[in-house]
Amino acid sequence: MQIDLNSDLGESLGAWQMGDDTAMLGIVTSANVACGFHAGDAAGILATLRGAKERGVAVGAHVAYRDLAGFGRRNMDVASSDLVADVIYQIGALQGLATAAGTRVTYVKPHGALYNTIAHDQRQAGDVIAAIRAIDPSLALVVLAGSPLERWAADAGLRVVAEAFADRAYTPQGTLVSRREPGAVLHDAGEVARRMLQLVREGTVQAIDGSTTRVRADSICVHGDSPGAVDMARAVREALEREGIALRAFAGTA
Amino acid sequence: MQIDLNSDLGESLGAWQMGDDTAMLGIVTSANVACGFHAGDAAGILATLRGAKERGVAVGAHVAYRDLAGFGRRNMDVASSDLVADVIYQIGALQGLATAAGTRVTYVKPHGALYNTIAHDQRQAGDVIAAIRAIDPSLALVVLAGSPLERWAADAGLRVVAEAFADRAYTPQGTLVSRREPGAVLHDAGEVARRMLQLVREGTVQAIDGSTTRVRADSICVHGDSPGAVDMARAVREALEREGIALRAFAGTA
Amino acid sequence: MQIDLNSDLGESLGAWQMGDDTAMLGIVTSANVACGFHAGDAAGILATLRGAKERGVAVGAHVAYRDLAGFGRRNMDVASSDLVADVIYQIGALQGLATAAGTRVTYVKPHGALYNTIAHDQRQAGDVIAAIRAIDPSLALVVLAGSPLERWAADAGLRVVAEAFADRAYTPQGTLVSRREPGAVLHDAGEVARRMLQLVREGTVQAIDGSTTRVRADSICVHGDSPGAVDMARAVREALEREGIALRAFAGTA
Amino acid sequence: MQIDLNSDLGESLGAWQMGDDTAMLGIVTSANVACGFHAGDAAGILATLRGAKERGVAVGAHVAYRDLAGFGRRNMDVASSDLVADVIYQIGALQGLATAAGTRVTYVKPHGALYNTIAHDQRQAGDVIAAIRAIDPSLALVVLAGSPLERWAADAGLRVVAEAFADRAYTPQGTLVSRREPGAVLHDAGEVARRMLQLVREGTVQAIDGSTTRVRADSICVHGDSPGAVDMARAVREALEREGIALRAFAGTA
Repeated sequence: MQIDLNSDLGESLGAWQMGDDTAMLGIVTSANVACGFHAGDAAGILATLRGAKERGVAVGAHVAYRDLAGFGRRNMDVASSDLVADVIYQIGALQGLATAAGTRVTYVKPHGALYNTIAHDQRQAGDVIAAIRAIDPSLALVVLAGSPLERWAADAGLRVVAEAFADRAYTPQGTLVSRREPGAVLHDAGEVARRMLQLVREGTVQAIDGSTTRVRADSICVHGDSPGAVDMARAVREALEREGIALRAFAGTA
Repeated sequence: MQIDLNSDLGESLGAWQMGDDTAMLGIVTSANVACGFHAGDAAGILATLRGAKERGVAVGAHVAYRDLAGFGRRNMDVASSDLVADVIYQIGALQGLATAAGTRVTYVKPHGALYNTIAHDQRQAGDVIAAIRAIDPSLALVVLAGSPLERWAADAGLRVVAEAFADRAYTPQGTLVSRREPGAVLHDAGEVARRMLQLVREGTVQAIDGSTTRVRADSICVHGDSPGAVDMARAVREALEREGIALRAFAGTA
Repeated sequence: MQIDLNSDLGESLGAWQMGDDTAMLGIVTSANVACGFHAGDAAGILATLRGAKERGVAVGAHVAYRDLAGFGRRNMDVASSDLVADVIYQIGALQGLATAAGTRVTYVKPHGALYNTIAHDQRQAGDVIAAIRAIDPSLALVVLAGSPLERWAADAGLRVVAEAFADRAYTPQGTLVSRREPGAVLHDAGEVARRMLQLVREGTVQAIDGSTTRVRADSICVHGDSPGAVDMARAVREALEREGIALRAFAGTA
Repeated sequence: MQIDLNSDLGESLGAWQMGDDTAMLGIVTSANVACGFHAGDAAGILATLRGAKERGVAVGAHVAYRDLAGFGRRNMDVASSDLVADVIYQIGALQGLATAAGTRVTYVKPHGALYNTIAHDQRQAGDVIAAIRAIDPSLALVVLAGSPLERWAADAGLRVVAEAFADRAYTPQGTLVSRREPGAVLHDAGEVARRMLQLVREGTVQAIDGSTTRVRADSICVHGDSPGAVDMARAVREALEREGIALRAFAGTA
């Protein structure tokens, strides 16, 4: 029994700090590293990659829309020719920095609005898939567990990593409860840890209505953007380790 | 007898066009392709790289300060940690796009203010050299012929390509006449072609005072940012070919 | 009988030129001047504003989404707090530059995707209206003739300027034929001039199916982004002048 | 006896927070508000301006080089036509947002590398002065006390505000000890408060060599970018108030 823990890192920008990469690199097995389009400057990204190398943490390209002001969280109607090239550009930039840090990029995880959009928008999903195939078809793609993208990516021949969210409530259908709904985000570290244990062992989570729903996940996303988030991530890791579940990067480390 | 012709390409940005990449790809043997920091959006860069692949033109990373508004022409006092990482980032991004275009990056040519600064500023020169060594020590570095950088780069073990400028006047010492001086820029295509022929054959140019000065160059930079510039570049190429001089990319094509 | 002619100006960016502002300032009565979010750098904008002042051309703020790479043409889901503040910021910046040029901003015309979105999206329309009211309620708002925005803006107490497009085909319902349809864009300067004459005199245009449809417009938008576009704009102006129609800025000049 | 306390605010950017504007608006009498070139997004700036309005804090335009990645701290060789227009643009943008917040901009304080450069570089100093005169000659300019800029600005007819730094050591000549020197930055809140009391009362500070040097200042700059900085700013304010010194914005509030 094993699982991967991933988190978003490298999101500082020049004088602006975000999150505690050092702490998170001691917790997760996979680091989704910003590529400069929604966050991250090259020097900060390089420092995070060096930390990932030291800790044996796998590195993924956290590709995004080109929108620093909106942190990549705003839906954007980007043309295919732009989206394909923008994703290749970001992966390439991160590969270059990873090489300099003595590691390598093994997967891609789209960020924010791009992540949400391609979970169900086949045109933009196809653009991201095409980008990965054009630069390195061996890169895995992290997708929302149970989303249409899971199948589109597999059909295109990509390695697919299905992802669950530690601190989010699920519908009886196994999809995420919208953040706009009450109870969508969980705050109790113990409860979150217990839920993820069940997810790994039984492939299920308790849905928001109390029913049990099936969620097949290869990786669990944890956050590190506040001290409380770091604590919750650590609690999840410790709960899994205590129960003898191996923590291992799905996509292989460098 | 052989020489390389290089030019700056991929400098359009979204809705803004610059230069005539298609024409220039039929003239030069090496394309210095913008990497997004002073010019270039990913889709436009990718299109230029595909053209370079088709025409068998070698591809170099035209790395720059992060300054779209100033087109990378403004001196900037960038800290070493930033400059090293910014250069790696740009080379990596271009490598990614080159892979997607079926070609590869074989050299680096800094752009604008960065080019001029590292010709004589040892700290920033060292940063660019360190960046190249960190991502791919086999990449050649294009330098101003006769500049201190030529030696610094060679001492660091890099392949060095010395560059002359087709349309620029030279001092008796073999350096460029400053653009602020009268006569610094040459406009007659026939004269420029004759000068470059002499450069290739004899390793000399006639300096602005009429004396003959030694300039050892592996590559000649031509411009393509106006119809007149394209015509001059073509005239240089044709004059060289007519005299049996082989045009060949110094750094090797993909 | 009078009409206003408006065009998008100030859209160069640093080293990148766009359009021929000098020519267009001799043709139009109102200049929609870029504010730096989709196009325009401060020095270029200032030069255009000085030209507008010299020629007695009215100045409008051509506000846009923050998207230089996409030239403001990509739909973006911008939160209200951001959109309101971004529009105020842009108007203020242009007011500052206009003051320095000895003129002033008398109207606002949203650009590209923002223009199209607020024609029918009440939330974003409300944000733009709120921004105008917050910085200067006397500013006119240019809207697509016949769009829901025309009423929303009037209901909010704004001065509204309804706009027709010289080179676009209309549906029998008086709306624009989508650019994706054949025949959506007109290319014959003589035909365009005749159509605009009918628009001004009779308040109608011939729709794409040959029927006559009512379009009530205070201003006609002409383009200047190519030599052909400048010629067409001039043809429209000359046709109107020949027929004794006064050309006058709807929103008042400085 | 009176003095002004100023601090840099509005420096958050989208998802990235910086400093504690709410706390600082309860301490200072003048807020140097970022204008979007080195920091600040429009919505965040507007929120800070509303806070300044509520607390009766004067508002200044904290203009900077266009360099988000470098936080405006990198020297840049910006041409005069660009620098003049960029400064006008920033002041105008802040004026627009200030109007929306019910307040107004009463002074200009250049930021970071621009501040340091114009203290002694007459060309760039002249550009900033020209920008202020072009948009609103009644705006005061905050300058380093004792710098050549103090005279240049006065000679140009600007209202000048000389500024001292609470947490910085001074040379016997009354200039700042470089940050590269040991002891350049003071960390003891009590000591800082006592020094500022002496500055206000006697127009002197104890220099780093123990001698007493004359510093004539209209305003004291305090920082708020860390909890410790906020505490020190509060200590300075309380020490001044305890001794009956009036705290008053030099440039007038809205």
